[in-house]
Amino acid sequence: MINSRKLKIFNDPIYGFITIPNGLIFDLIGHPYFQRLRRISQMGLSYLVYPGAHHTRFHHALGSMHLMQNALQVLKYKGVEVSEAEEEGLCIAILLHDIGHGPFSHAMEHSIVESTDHEHISLQFMEALNKIFNGRLTLAISIFKGQYDKRFLNQLVSSQLDMDRLDYLKRDSFYTGVAEGNINSERLITMLNVVDGNLVVEEKGIYSVEKFLMARRFMYWQVYLHKTGIVAEQLLIRILKRAKEIMHEGQVVVCSKALRFFMENRIEKQDFDLEILSTFSKLDDVDVLAAIKSWQDHDDFVLSTLCEMLINRRFLKVKLKNSPIDRAVFKKHKARVKEKYNLTDQETAYFVFEGKIENKAYDRYHQNINILRKNKRLIDVAKASDQLNLKALSKTVTKYYICYPKDSV
Amino acid sequence: MINSRKLKIFNDPIYGFITIPNGLIFDLIGHPYFQRLRRISQMGLSYLVYPGAHHTRFHHALGSMHLMQNALQVLKYKGVEVSEAEEEGLCIAILLHDIGHGPFSHAMEHSIVESTDHEHISLQFMEALNKIFNGRLTLAISIFKGQYDKRFLNQLVSSQLDMDRLDYLKRDSFYTGVAEGNINSERLITMLNVVDGNLVVEEKGIYSVEKFLMARRFMYWQVYLHKTGIVAEQLLIRILKRAKEIMHEGQVVVCSKALRFFMENRIEKQDFDLEILSTFSKLDDVDVLAAIKSWQDHDDFVLSTLCEMLINRRFLKVKLKNSPIDRAVFKKHKARVKEKYNLTDQETAYFVFEGKIENKAYDRYHQNINILRKNKRLIDVAKASDQLNLKALSKTVTKYYICYPKDSV
Amino acid sequence: MINSRKLKIFNDPIYGFITIPNGLIFDLIGHPYFQRLRRISQMGLSYLVYPGAHHTRFHHALGSMHLMQNALQVLKYKGVEVSEAEEEGLCIAILLHDIGHGPFSHAMEHSIVESTDHEHISLQFMEALNKIFNGRLTLAISIFKGQYDKRFLNQLVSSQLDMDRLDYLKRDSFYTGVAEGNINSERLITMLNVVDGNLVVEEKGIYSVEKFLMARRFMYWQVYLHKTGIVAEQLLIRILKRAKEIMHEGQVVVCSKALRFFMENRIEKQDFDLEILSTFSKLDDVDVLAAIKSWQDHDDFVLSTLCEMLINRRFLKVKLKNSPIDRAVFKKHKARVKEKYNLTDQETAYFVFEGKIENKAYDRYHQNINILRKNKRLIDVAKASDQLNLKALSKTVTKYYICYPKDSV
Amino acid sequence: MINSRKLKIFNDPIYGFITIPNGLIFDLIGHPYFQRLRRISQMGLSYLVYPGAHHTRFHHALGSMHLMQNALQVLKYKGVEVSEAEEEGLCIAILLHDIGHGPFSHAMEHSIVESTDHEHISLQFMEALNKIFNGRLTLAISIFKGQYDKRFLNQLVSSQLDMDRLDYLKRDSFYTGVAEGNINSERLITMLNVVDGNLVVEEKGIYSVEKFLMARRFMYWQVYLHKTGIVAEQLLIRILKRAKEIMHEGQVVVCSKALRFFMENRIEKQDFDLEILSTFSKLDDVDVLAAIKSWQDHDDFVLSTLCEMLINRRFLKVKLKNSPIDRAVFKKHKARVKEKYNLTDQETAYFVFEGKIENKAYDRYHQNINILRKNKRLIDVAKASDQLNLKALSKTVTKYYICYPKDSV
Repeated sequence: MINSRKLKIFNDPIYGFITIPNGLIFDLIGHPYFQRLRRISQMGLSYLVYPGAHHTRFHHALGSMHLMQNALQVLKYKGVEVSEAEEEGLCIAILLHDIGHGPFSHAMEHSIVESTDHEHISLQFMEALNKIFNGRLTLAISIFKGQYDKRFLNQLVSSQLDMDRLDYLKRDSFYTGVAEGNINSERLITMLNVVDGNLVVEEKGIYSVEKFLMARRFMYWQVYLHKTGIVAEQLLIRILKRAKEIMHEGQVVVCSKALRFFMENRIEKQDFDLEILSTFSKLDDVDVLAAIKSWQDHDDFVLSTLCEMLINRRFLKVKLKNSPIDRAVFKKHKARVKEKYNLTDQETAYFVFEGKIENKAYDRYHQNINILRKNKRLIDVAKASDQLNLKALSKTVTKYYICYPKDSV
Repeated sequence: MINSRKLKIFNDPIYGFITIPNGLIFDLIGHPYFQRLRRISQMGLSYLVYPGAHHTRFHHALGSMHLMQNALQVLKYKGVEVSEAEEEGLCIAILLHDIGHGPFSHAMEHSIVESTDHEHISLQFMEALNKIFNGRLTLAISIFKGQYDKRFLNQLVSSQLDMDRLDYLKRDSFYTGVAEGNINSERLITMLNVVDGNLVVEEKGIYSVEKFLMARRFMYWQVYLHKTGIVAEQLLIRILKRAKEIMHEGQVVVCSKALRFFMENRIEKQDFDLEILSTFSKLDDVDVLAAIKSWQDHDDFVLSTLCEMLINRRFLKVKLKNSPIDRAVFKKHKARVKEKYNLTDQETAYFVFEGKIENKAYDRYHQNINILRKNKRLIDVAKASDQLNLKALSKTVTKYYICYPKDSV
Repeated sequence: MINSRKLKIFNDPIYGFITIPNGLIFDLIGHPYFQRLRRISQMGLSYLVYPGAHHTRFHHALGSMHLMQNALQVLKYKGVEVSEAEEEGLCIAILLHDIGHGPFSHAMEHSIVESTDHEHISLQFMEALNKIFNGRLTLAISIFKGQYDKRFLNQLVSSQLDMDRLDYLKRDSFYTGVAEGNINSERLITMLNVVDGNLVVEEKGIYSVEKFLMARRFMYWQVYLHKTGIVAEQLLIRILKRAKEIMHEGQVVVCSKALRFFMENRIEKQDFDLEILSTFSKLDDVDVLAAIKSWQDHDDFVLSTLCEMLINRRFLKVKLKNSPIDRAVFKKHKARVKEKYNLTDQETAYFVFEGKIENKAYDRYHQNINILRKNKRLIDVAKASDQLNLKALSKTVTKYYICYPKDSV
Repeated sequence: MINSRKLKIFNDPIYGFITIPNGLIFDLIGHPYFQRLRRISQMGLSYLVYPGAHHTRFHHALGSMHLMQNALQVLKYKGVEVSEAEEEGLCIAILLHDIGHGPFSHAMEHSIVESTDHEHISLQFMEALNKIFNGRLTLAISIFKGQYDKRFLNQLVSSQLDMDRLDYLKRDSFYTGVAEGNINSERLITMLNVVDGNLVVEEKGIYSVEKFLMARRFMYWQVYLHKTGIVAEQLLIRILKRAKEIMHEGQVVVCSKALRFFMENRIEKQDFDLEILSTFSKLDDVDVLAAIKSWQDHDDFVLSTLCEMLINRRFLKVKLKNSPIDRAVFKKHKARVKEKYNLTDQETAYFVFEGKIENKAYDRYHQNINILRKNKRLIDVAKASDQLNLKALSKTVTKYYICYPKDSV
């Protein structure tokens, strides 16, 4: 006799292998809604700064599910009760948590579907899939919405130490080659426990939590908010804006059907019906890149110039400051560019602009991390840390940037 | 005083950092011709089998240049004379060796530009860049063409153990997560030497060379010739073929300008002038993917069906055999599909087809590897190996495949 | 309520964490018999060639148990039935499989206890522990002896692809830094299955098995049989031999009590009672190294010279040949050394000697590896491999060495 | 013609290969004084907590030299002038910086040679080697003493960011498997520069410096000051103390000649002549372990019990507190142990004792790290950090421990 239940696995450069737990999840992965994530870059345009960062939402979703399986094994070993149905629900919830991301993930979050965030769209996808799969996603949806009555299940999907973060920090660090962001997800997971229905970290894990918060902060400033990445993202946003502008003025702007729909229509949250979802599901990085490539030849100077900049990686100059940009400096750049290229004020604003970026490494008011003391008391990690001033990490740090053409001074 | 020569570096998940040796090379990397490689997948459609395999030709080219710098350091340490001009030439030659690749690298090699291989196009790019950079690529071109009078320089760029192979095997193994293909490029490089103007491997490196050949064979059968990858590639090729067919019949086929040019015209090697090169330089994975996405809605049943299959990863069934496909089986599948979907013979051939794949792990007649014995004699690795029957690796292995719709039987 | 079953873990640089499955195994690890393995070098004197190779039998035993847990998870997933008692038995059997190793593992295997191999001593330890732990090791002992009636359990502990090999190849490769020996233990394990009670590898694992055999062969020739390692090992063996010789002549030879016992007595297999086991359990690398350090000052020229050589890593010259050492050359070295140092023939033989080393990468007659074809047939890997001549790997390769003082010619 | 300068390399699991720059350094490594470091554990007894941590001072010294070579390459590329003699001096200084360590490195620092620290002994070794190698270490000694007139050379050998720390943190993290301590030495090195003769870090390196300080703090609390490691170290210190005590009372205490010398004599700094150095050079972990193994059978209850505890890893219970140990608790433990084992007060103190451990992650007053701003100004990293309260890291953290037999309460 041959034992024949087949182990469905994906190779993963980080974890070695990712095992698909059952047939339902296998089918969800095979659905076009999920396959589309293969064409959504996890880190937006960061690959223009870190050439290895071409990994996708597809791979991140699988990775998060893998960590969820590990976490479940640890918690069950420690005596936490989780039913088989809950296990499946957790795996599905984490697998689909980001399915609503549009092209280039966060980079275009409010450029394409202006008034709806990706979590809402993820939920629409999950509900559509729930119909297709005859209600078998109901428990997963309840967890995803944070409404399931065992809080720690919700927290495994969405909290400061959820499997999403534990995967994306590790994965982004791995693919960018920025070793400082590498977190020890495995170790953190072995230190999870459940107290009074909440996910907590055992006391010996305190240094690992600190390390995790530091790594996260590091990744924000060094990678996610890298100034060259910011200028790339701003170009992308401005290209879409300009294209919409001239489309609404009646000019021809070539692009895919799905992209055209979202450029022509402003979709509000309540409008998001199955038909719009279906159109959205056809939209990915390819639509946007193909449009930008073709718009390099557009008659509009602003549009074609911005597109050429992005495609050929000939960016605007960007300066990052700790205080707001000096008004006089900003005006000087605007004046020179306006004159040099003979532009209107509105057009000039596409090439000379400013903005700010913010990050808070730890938010103890919204999503704190509880440490389980040996005396069985819970304490916030910011208080438990003997030395590191984690309160300082709770402060929002703001930086200011200005962008302008390299030759404008 | 501050020391201020700036170290230009790229992060690389494999080597840590890749250093750009000088300003000319920095400018070549910045040129749109080279930036385009950011949009050419290194492994074609293999990411549909190995979800991590989204790395690009851009990154591989930088990685090869990094290994070249290492090899030069080793050889110079051992007393091999290499001038600064030769060093620069080598770095440029390896950096640009693959610049002529079209969309999806090898997968479409003869689908888009039918009668010209990527090496020839690489050369056109290099000559165009040589004009732009005032002849500073002349030495690099001579090395690339294998015409430079120090043979080992040519061999570092193109031979069984060139820096191209040492990078791509390692890189493809890394990104796919297929650890068996991981070669020890660093070790192999420390064992290189030059005898009578030829690149050789020192005797103690013999096991490493064997390991390299085995890893290469492994990657071929397990990754490059993976049956699911083959069916994906065949779909891609057939989609282009079908689109050309119906375009030539006069139907509208939406696609980018650059892609249209190559679909409408059959370019012969001698035609490849600067203008065609310029059009080619605008063509990358995005053009092809965008076309396929849009063709999912085409009226032609064959085209739209093939495109949907590829986008949603709903492939034909593929079987791999050690002997040619049985005629009766093949005919049976054809007949059923033809009837079921009411197709012509010509149309049926898009859904039921066969082919063969071949690989030879070591080619001792064309590009052998010489081992330097302690007695200063050279010997072919296939003879030097005490036990492993490397002669067996020189044999071409052929496998046969058949593809047909999953539901056709 | 707090969930409180404690996860007992060891950090491992290779697998991240090793989990201790239960209290019995935790107690076995804590027993002095097992703790002693912390003082037994896994690779004998190889650290004199590869300075990273200081890992111990203790760590290897834990690592093998970790892989066993993985293998059990895979097999159970595939539907193979394994009871909890069998799981525990397997973990104990693999944990203790090498507990009988003496100082420097294989290097001194027949120098200290001349007529008994380490497997036999392992069994004595297991039986002694079985008494201490009230018979709870009975099933483990049955598996260790290969007498348990489910053959695949025995094969997981001892066969061509047992967890011992899968750990030691990976671990030795890791600590030496010889990347070529790195095998993908995890992948091989996912491809295990059971057919008719025997452990087999599924067909898609064939390249991985080949890769494993190649890596093993590589490690043998490059690491385990490294010529500098051989001369170190021969010095060690000869030091013990000389020390016994002069001890039996009545000279004072300072050493630990346990070492003295085994130097003074020749222990036959049948003599190995609990008292001798207890003495053996006090013997480890420290006893031997301390003795050698002190013998550097011994009056006997041969003994003190050999000890100084080993401690200060001033080895004899060693030459490795594919054919037996030339008689004339050997005699010439002997004559010169004898004259130069004014030695007897017997003494000279300590400084000028020869020997041979052998390795067979794959033994298809004694422990073959069965591949499970898709047609459910089993086939030996040497036949299943399409191209690689694995039959060649079944051939025994012999090399010959000669050692003599560096200044003797 | 064959190019034949031989590349002398060591395999290293961390850096791949370590290259020996020249013949003098090769000879220094071969000297018995340096070979002795193969028998000195880098992390003392930490392997009793982290079973992978068996790496040696020998390997760490080679690793530090490797990083020094990298740092020199970076600095020279940036235009910092370093002569060939200075390069050699730097490599020798870092290679030998720890040669004065005694058995178990820091663990026994003031137990064996009570009044002399390892730096002083390192200097004695270097001066002795300088005589043997005819003054070729003079420049290295000047750098090692911090007296060379280019300050940054001294700082590369001894400062907050010296090559010693960059190697040991990475190496200890690697071998323990504690990933959180893994620092990106390579990245930090690429960001080094020299301003006004001092080593500085370029501004973009600020997050990496923070990460380095955090990793260092992590390793201190999680590894170097691990409570189980502390109790092991305290046992070791108390064993030596007890053995001296009873030796001075006239009892026989078996041990090696070298160890006996240092147990019988209290060596003051000024006494450290060539003869004492020669005796010291014969002392390593083996002498201490062999003694402890044999002392398990000593008549003295205290000595034999402590030795058995250490060898069999049956430690005292240890509790770690943030405030000093409660007097009443301490007395209670003492009274119980005294009574239970019928001991004197002096003897009891060997089994019930307390102590404190301290760590300061960053010492801005003694060895600050300067960040080079883009405006060319230097600023202390504690001020440059935007958010992380590095001042908090400058605070000394103190913890208190108490040890007592497990069964005493």
